[in-house]
Amino acid sequence: MDSVGKRFPRVDARAKVLGTARYADDYVFPGMLHAKAVYSPHPHAEVVSIDPAPALALPGVRAVVTPRDIPGENLIPLVIPDLPVLAKRARYVGDPVAVVVADTQDLAAEGARLVRVEWRPLPAVFDPIEALAPGAPLVAPPHETPQNAGHGSATTGANLYNYLKVRKGDIQAGFDEADLIVEHTYRTPYHEHAYLEPQGMTVVPEPDGGVSVYGCMQCPFYVHEAVARILGLPRHLVRVFQVGTGGGFGGKEDVPSIIAGLAALGAHATKRPVKLVLSRKEDMETMSKRHPAIVRYKTGVKNDGTLTALEVELYLDGGGYATLSPVVLYRAVVHAAGPYRVPHVKIDGYAVATNKVPCGAFRGFGTLQVIFANESNLDEVAARLKMDPWEIRKRNALRAGDETATGQLLPESVGLLETLEKAAEKSDYFARRKTYASWQQGPKRRGLGVSCIFYGVGLGAKGKFLDKTAANIQVHPDASALVAIGNAEMGQGLRTVIGQIAAEELGLSFEKVQCLDGDTSRVPDSGPTVASRATVMAGNAVRDAAAKIRREMFQVAAPLLEAMPDDLYIEDQKIKVRSADPKRTARMLAVREVVRRCHDERREMTATGFRLPADTWWDDEKGQGKAYEVFSFATNVCELEVDIETGETRVLRLVAAHDIGKAINPALAEGQIEGGSLQGLGFALTEEVKIENGFVKNPRFATYIIPTAMDSPEIVSVIVEHSYSSGPYGAKGIGEPPIMGIAPAVTNAIKEATGARMFEVPATPERVRDAIRRATGKKEETQPTRRPAVVSEGRAP
Amino acid sequence: MDSVGKRFPRVDARAKVLGTARYADDYVFPGMLHAKAVYSPHPHAEVVSIDPAPALALPGVRAVVTPRDIPGENLIPLVIPDLPVLAKRARYVGDPVAVVVADTQDLAAEGARLVRVEWRPLPAVFDPIEALAPGAPLVAPPHETPQNAGHGSATTGANLYNYLKVRKGDIQAGFDEADLIVEHTYRTPYHEHAYLEPQGMTVVPEPDGGVSVYGCMQCPFYVHEAVARILGLPRHLVRVFQVGTGGGFGGKEDVPSIIAGLAALGAHATKRPVKLVLSRKEDMETMSKRHPAIVRYKTGVKNDGTLTALEVELYLDGGGYATLSPVVLYRAVVHAAGPYRVPHVKIDGYAVATNKVPCGAFRGFGTLQVIFANESNLDEVAARLKMDPWEIRKRNALRAGDETATGQLLPESVGLLETLEKAAEKSDYFARRKTYASWQQGPKRRGLGVSCIFYGVGLGAKGKFLDKTAANIQVHPDASALVAIGNAEMGQGLRTVIGQIAAEELGLSFEKVQCLDGDTSRVPDSGPTVASRATVMAGNAVRDAAAKIRREMFQVAAPLLEAMPDDLYIEDQKIKVRSADPKRTARMLAVREVVRRCHDERREMTATGFRLPADTWWDDEKGQGKAYEVFSFATNVCELEVDIETGETRVLRLVAAHDIGKAINPALAEGQIEGGSLQGLGFALTEEVKIENGFVKNPRFATYIIPTAMDSPEIVSVIVEHSYSSGPYGAKGIGEPPIMGIAPAVTNAIKEATGARMFEVPATPERVRDAIRRATGKKEETQPTRRPAVVSEGRAP
Repeated sequence: MDSVGKRFPRVDARAKVLGTARYADDYVFPGMLHAKAVYSPHPHAEVVSIDPAPALALPGVRAVVTPRDIPGENLIPLVIPDLPVLAKRARYVGDPVAVVVADTQDLAAEGARLVRVEWRPLPAVFDPIEALAPGAPLVAPPHETPQNAGHGSATTGANLYNYLKVRKGDIQAGFDEADLIVEHTYRTPYHEHAYLEPQGMTVVPEPDGGVSVYGCMQCPFYVHEAVARILGLPRHLVRVFQVGTGGGFGGKEDVPSIIAGLAALGAHATKRPVKLVLSRKEDMETMSKRHPAIVRYKTGVKNDGTLTALEVELYLDGGGYATLSPVVLYRAVVHAAGPYRVPHVKIDGYAVATNKVPCGAFRGFGTLQVIFANESNLDEVAARLKMDPWEIRKRNALRAGDETATGQLLPESVGLLETLEKAAEKSDYFARRKTYASWQQGPKRRGLGVSCIFYGVGLGAKGKFLDKTAANIQVHPDASALVAIGNAEMGQGLRTVIGQIAAEELGLSFEKVQCLDGDTSRVPDSGPTVASRATVMAGNAVRDAAAKIRREMFQVAAPLLEAMPDDLYIEDQKIKVRSADPKRTARMLAVREVVRRCHDERREMTATGFRLPADTWWDDEKGQGKAYEVFSFATNVCELEVDIETGETRVLRLVAAHDIGKAINPALAEGQIEGGSLQGLGFALTEEVKIENGFVKNPRFATYIIPTAMDSPEIVSVIVEHSYSSGPYGAKGIGEPPIMGIAPAVTNAIKEATGARMFEVPATPERVRDAIRRATGKKEETQPTRRPAVVSEGRAP
Repeated sequence: MDSVGKRFPRVDARAKVLGTARYADDYVFPGMLHAKAVYSPHPHAEVVSIDPAPALALPGVRAVVTPRDIPGENLIPLVIPDLPVLAKRARYVGDPVAVVVADTQDLAAEGARLVRVEWRPLPAVFDPIEALAPGAPLVAPPHETPQNAGHGSATTGANLYNYLKVRKGDIQAGFDEADLIVEHTYRTPYHEHAYLEPQGMTVVPEPDGGVSVYGCMQCPFYVHEAVARILGLPRHLVRVFQVGTGGGFGGKEDVPSIIAGLAALGAHATKRPVKLVLSRKEDMETMSKRHPAIVRYKTGVKNDGTLTALEVELYLDGGGYATLSPVVLYRAVVHAAGPYRVPHVKIDGYAVATNKVPCGAFRGFGTLQVIFANESNLDEVAARLKMDPWEIRKRNALRAGDETATGQLLPESVGLLETLEKAAEKSDYFARRKTYASWQQGPKRRGLGVSCIFYGVGLGAKGKFLDKTAANIQVHPDASALVAIGNAEMGQGLRTVIGQIAAEELGLSFEKVQCLDGDTSRVPDSGPTVASRATVMAGNAVRDAAAKIRREMFQVAAPLLEAMPDDLYIEDQKIKVRSADPKRTARMLAVREVVRRCHDERREMTATGFRLPADTWWDDEKGQGKAYEVFSFATNVCELEVDIETGETRVLRLVAAHDIGKAINPALAEGQIEGGSLQGLGFALTEEVKIENGFVKNPRFATYIIPTAMDSPEIVSVIVEHSYSSGPYGAKGIGEPPIMGIAPAVTNAIKEATGARMFEVPATPERVRDAIRRATGKKEETQPTRRPAVVSEGRAP
C-alpha cells in the first residue's frame, strides 16, 4: 500500500513544533470580551439571591448573567438531564451559578469576586457508600430503581444515578465448582485528565442572529446541541468549530458544553464575542474527572487455574451531577470480567451521587477501576495456586469463537494470545522472573507484573443511537483533496490517519490530502470522538465517500484502458486493470491524469460517505448482550524496582503488546501506546485528586503529580494485527487500551518484588511502605483447601 | 406552495439595515498588515527596474513585492493567459507592478509612493479602430486570426483579442428582399460598475502552509485557482471565503483574483495576514469596466415591417488585457440580432486591445452595446415605415418554435409577446403615445419609447466547460437546515431564493433554513456567479440534494402512513399520500416529526446535489449553434420628458415586463428589475468613464454620475412566467435582463419626444441638445423607396 501502514509524521507536527498551531485561546475576534464564572464555595447550597450590582459598578464589567437571563433551557443535554449551565442549587464546590463578562480576563475575575451571592448551605455527602445509606443528604433524586441489586441500601435509589448488572450462568454453581475463592476490595482515586490545554471557548454572535463557537473539544455536535438549546436557537443558527485541541482524554467530551454555554450566555447578554478560558486551577477544581471507585472482586477458580465464577460489586463515585456516569458504568460492567472465559458471572454496578466535582469520561472510561481490581485479584488467585500469572491468563484468555461474560460471541479478530506471547517474548518475561525470584536482597527489589485487557471499540449497545459518522471528500483538479470529518483531532493524529486512508482509497499523494478541522456545519453529526471509535468510524465513512469518487474515476478511465470499470483498481497512484492477460495488466493511467479528465468532464468529484457500526444490543433485564461491535486486546508487562525502605517505585520497562487489527500509521499507534502507558503510570503511582469536604486540595501540577519525560521508563510497543473485517484495512481502536492495563501490571510487579499487594492506587511510596509493612508483618497465606478456600482482604465497601 | 413564490424579506436584510452585516473590510485578523499596489503612471511602458529601498526605509513598511518574488506563476488564469499579477510591461495607467505591505493602509500608500520604478515609456494606442490599423503600437500580440472578417485591417490580427461571427441565411439575398435598409453606427461608453463596496481581500497564512482568503467576489473558485497558482500551492491548501459582497454586477467576476493575488503575495512575503482594500478612486481607475463599443447596424425590412436582413459590425474596446473580452464578445454576437425572427444575418465582432483600463464582465455582458444599436435602428426603421415601434417588434418577435439568429430552436418558454402586451397595457402605451403626438409644445416634450430584449441564461456553449454546480444540504434533528452552495450572494438575494427552494423541496419552514456564505472547501467548484445562472443552476443542485434527503424521509414515513414511498409527497410541511382513496389521503405526518425519526434512525440527512446545464454547442466556422440553454425575455417602455432647451431628460415612468419563467421570490425579482432598470438609466443618461490618453478623468462619484433615489422614476415591474421545464419551478434568469433594454427605451422615447435620434449614450443634456439641434436643422428624412432605400447616419467606425 502506498499510504496506509506508513509511518508518516503527523500533519500538524510542524505547526505544533513551530508554535504556529492555534488553540482555543489563540482565537481573537474584534470587540471580544472575557468571561469568568462565579463558582459555588459550598459543596451543597441553595442560591438565595444574586446581586450583580457591585460587579457591574466596576468599570469594564459589561454583564453579569444569572439563571434568569438564560434565553433557552438552563440545561446541558446529557443522558440524565440534571446538569444546569448555571445552578440554582450548587451540588459541588465549583458549581457555576453566574457568569461575569468584562473587557479583560482580570476584570472578569475581579467582577466575579464582587458578585454578591446569598447562600443557604445544605448538608452534604462525600462518600458514595454513605450517599446510598438511608437518610443521606439528597444530592440527586433517584434516577433508576435498581432491580436485583446486591447492595441492600441501594434499593432506596436515592443518590443513585444508575444501576447495571451482568448475569451469566449460575453464580452459586460457579463458586461451588471452585477449588479456591479469592475475594478482595480495591479502590481507585479521582484522576485528573491533565490535558496540556485547559478548557476554552469563544462564542461569536453572527449577523444572522446565530452564533459561532470556537474552542477545544472532542464532541462538536454535543456543543452544537447544548448551545442551541441554551440560547433557544434552532440548530442551523449555531456553528461549532472544533479548533486545535491540546489533549482531551475524555475530559473534553461533555464538559466543553458547559464552557460553551457560559460563554454563549455572555455573548448573548453583550452581543459581542466572549471568550472563556479556564485557568489550570479552575479547570482542575471544576472540570470532570475519572470516577473514584470501590470494587469488590470475588474470583472462583479450579486448582488447574480455570476460572469458574466471578462476582463483582462496583461503586463509581459520580460526584455532583450524572454527566456520563450511566455510560461509564455500562462500560465498567461489560469489561469487569476481563478478557477471559468465565462461565458464571454476576456483576452489580452502581453510579452514585456525592457533593463533589462530577466525574465523567476519561480514557479507559470505567475500565481502569475494574481492570485494576480484576487483574490484581487474578494474581492473588495465581499466587495461591502457585501458578505463574502469565500462565493463568493464557489458560483463561478469550479466543476467537469464545463468548464474553455478557454472552457476546467473538467470531474474529481476537489477538489476545498473540499479545501474551509477544509481551512475554519482548519482556524476556520468564527468564527475568526466574532471575528476580532468586535475586531479591537489599532494599532494591525487582519484579515483573503482567496484565491483560480487552476493550469494546465504539459506543456499543448503550450508545448506538449516537453511533454514526460521515465524511466528505472534495478532490481538486490538481489531484489534491480535502477531507472533512465529523470527528475531532485532539492530538491523537486522527487527521493524519484519515488523510492516509483517503489517499490510499483514491490513489492520491498523501502530501496532497488534507483533513480539515472540525466544523459542525460541514459534515453531519458524526457522534462523539470517544471510545476509540474515530479511526474505525470516520475511516469507514471516508472509504464510503472515496468509493463514490473512485466510481467516477473508473468510468472515465475504463474506455481509455479498454476495460470494464469493475475490473479497475488503484495501486501506487495508478489505475490498473485486473486481468489474467499480461497485455491488459500492462495498461495503466496515473490517477492524477484521470482526476484532471474527470474535472474536464464535469464529473462529481465530491462525495459524502456514511458509516453505521455493526449492530449491537443490550438487555438490561438479563444483564447480557452484544455489547460492542469488536474488541481490541492487549497485554502489558511491567518490570520495576521498589525501594522497600522508602517505598519508592521505579519502573524500568513497560512492554505493551496491542492487538489493534491494523495500524494505519504504526508511528502514531506507537505514540498512542507510549502516551497511554505513561498516563497509566501516573494513575498507578502518583496521580490522585485529593478532595476534603468537597474541596480539591491539590489543583495544581506542583501537588498533583503527573509523570514527566524523566519518569518515563523504556516503553516497548508491540503491534499485533488480528484484522477486523469491518474495520478500515482491518483496524480496530487504539485510543484507550494503552492506559487500561498499566496499573495492575505495576502493582502486580510490586507484589512480585516485595510480596505486598496494593489494594489501592496510586501506589505512592507511603502506600507501598504501608503495604510492605502489612505484608511482612503477616503470616504466609494458608494454602487453599478444597470446597473451597476463601481468601478475603481489603476494606469492605 | 409553502415557500416558493412567496415574498419573503431577504435573509440578510436585518443585518444590512442594522449595520451588523460584515463586508471584506470588516474582517480583521491578529497581526494583520495592509497592502497597496504600485501602479503604472504610463498607459504603456516597460519596467526597467524597481528599487524598493526608499519604501523599505520607511518605518512600518514590511515588504515590497516585485515580480521576482512571486513563488508560483505571475498570472491570473483566464480565457487568454495574458494578465500578470504584477506587470513587467504596463499596458494601462493603473497596471500594478509591485505591492507594498505595511502596518497601516496609510503607511502602505506612502510606501507605494516611495518605491522607485524606472520606466521605459512605449507608444500607446487608445482607439480600437486605430489599434487594428497596420502599424499601430502593439498592445497585445494576435490571439486569434479572424476568418472571413469584414474589417480589412483586422485580418492582421494585431491587438485583436478575438473575432467571432454569426452567419445565417444569405445576407445579400436578405437585403435584396428588403424594401428599406437603414444603416447607422452607434456608440456606447466605458461604464463603471459602481458597486457599493470596493474590491477588498484579506489573505491569511495558515499553519498548514496554505492560505485562507476572505473577500468580496462573485467567483470564489476563480480566486481559488488564481491564488493557488500564484503562490505555487496545491489547491487543497487554499481556502476562499466569499464574504458579504456589496454588489458585483460582473465587476467582481475576474478582477478579485488580482486583488487576492496581490494580497496573497504580501502575505507570502510577510507570513502575516494581509488586507488589500481599494479606495474608490483606485477601484474606478484600475478595475474592469463595461466595454465601450462602436457598432454599425444595417437593417433590411419589408414595407409591412417584416425583417429580412441584419448586418452588424461590432468593435468592443477591450483595454489593456483580454480578461473576459472573448466571452463578452460571444454573448454580444449571439444577442446582436435581438429577440426577433431575422432570416438573413451576418454579424462580425471584434474585441480589441488598447492601452486603457481593461474591460470585462458587467451585467448584460456585451449585450447593452448591441441592444442599444439594434433597438435604436429598429425604431429608425419603424419611423420610416410609419409603423408603431411596438407593432414592428410584435410582428418580428420570437415565438415558441422559432429559431434565433444563431439557428437555435426555441421549443418552449418564449414569453416575449406577453411581455410586449403587458408592457403596453401597464404603460398605457397607445393612449399616451397618441396624446403626446398631439400635445407637444413648449420646451418640455414627452414621449414613450419601447425596447425588447432576450438573454441567454447561463454560460452557454462557449463557457460550458465551467458550467456545473453543486449544493449541500444538512438537515438537523429540529428540522432546521443548512444549505451550502458554490455560488455567491452579492446583494441579489440568492441566499434567500435558495433557502426558499430548499424549504419547499423538503417541507421545512423557510425561517429554519439557512444558506451559508461561500467557502470553496465546502462545496465543489460551482462555476462563476454570473450570467444570471445562479437560481437555475444552484436551485437545481439544491433540488437534487433535497431529493436524496426526501427519499430517506419517505422511507421512514411510508410504513407509518401505510403507503409506498413513491406515493408520498410534501405539501405545507407535511408528508401526504397521493391516492384516489380519501381515507388514504387523509393520513399525513408533519415533516418535523419525520425528520426527528430519521435522525433517531441515524439516516443520511445530509446530501450533496449536482447540476449540469442542458447541452449547448457552438460552431465557430459556421457562426451558428445552440448558444444557450434557455432565454429570458423582456419589454421595456419608458415614458419621459425632455427639456428641449436644456437637453435635460426626466424619466417619468419605466415599465419593465420580464419573462423569467418563474419568480421564486417575486419581491426579490422585482428588486432585481428595479435595481437593473435604475442602473440602466445611468447607462442611458449620465454614466460615462472619461478616459484621456489612458487616464481616467472622473474616478469619483462627484464626476461620475450614477442615479440616486431622487433620480428614480416610477418603475412598474411586471413578471411574466413562461415556465422553463428544466428550471427550478420553471425559473430562468433575472439578474441581467433588467438593465439590458433601458437605454434604447429611453433614447427611443427621446426620439419620440424631440425627433432627435441619439446615436451615442449616455444621452447627456449636451448630447441631447446637440442631437435636437441636428434633427431640427435637418430636412425630414426622405420616404423609403423600393429596392431599397438606404438610410445611413452616425460616424462610421
